[in-house]
Amino acid sequence: MRRHRYLVAYDIRDPRRLRLVAKKMEDFGDRTQYSVFLCDLTRADVADMTRALLTVIDSTIDRILIVDLGSGDSDSRFEFLGRRHGLPTTGHRVL
Amino acid sequence: MRRHRYLVAYDIRDPRRLRLVAKKMEDFGDRTQYSVFLCDLTRADVADMTRALLTVIDSTIDRILIVDLGSGDSDSRFEFLGRRHGLPTTGHRVL
Repeated sequence: MRRHRYLVAYDIRDPRRLRLVAKKMEDFGDRTQYSVFLCDLTRADVADMTRALLTVIDSTIDRILIVDLGSGDSDSRFEFLGRRHGLPTTGHRVL
Repeated sequence: MRRHRYLVAYDIRDPRRLRLVAKKMEDFGDRTQYSVFLCDLTRADVADMTRALLTVIDSTIDRILIVDLGSGDSDSRFEFLGRRHGLPTTGHRVL
């Protein structure tokens, strides 16, 4: 099943929920910023991730943005300023 | 000059610099999360934004990720969980 690269950015307004979201996200991709993960996922993985996140967040306060960056080589889309952070080189790692 | 949509996410490790980065970014796009902006920019705008950000950040500590989401309709790339946040509907607003 074809994977796309996804960028997941979250605003979580409670430290406990923030830790839980970060922990869930570690199952799906690589942290590239404090509240941003990059993940190589199938549509089924995205559904699993969405379900997992919805069990943790408070949907009235928190918010999560998921951006589909497509299936092609997306490295050229990225530009970094400041301290270097890598891009994921592997696919989805758990599940 | 053709505009692309860009996602700009930043990790800034100092409250004063964080405020300055957010203020600069308001000239270029719309804040969609605490540390994430969406911007419709030409390549020249991106160069201006990069220059503006580099005057503010500490490149040894802070980091900024700029993702080119392309020139086509990018709305279908976005999925939101939790509290809704809009997408920019206009192009680059200042300069």
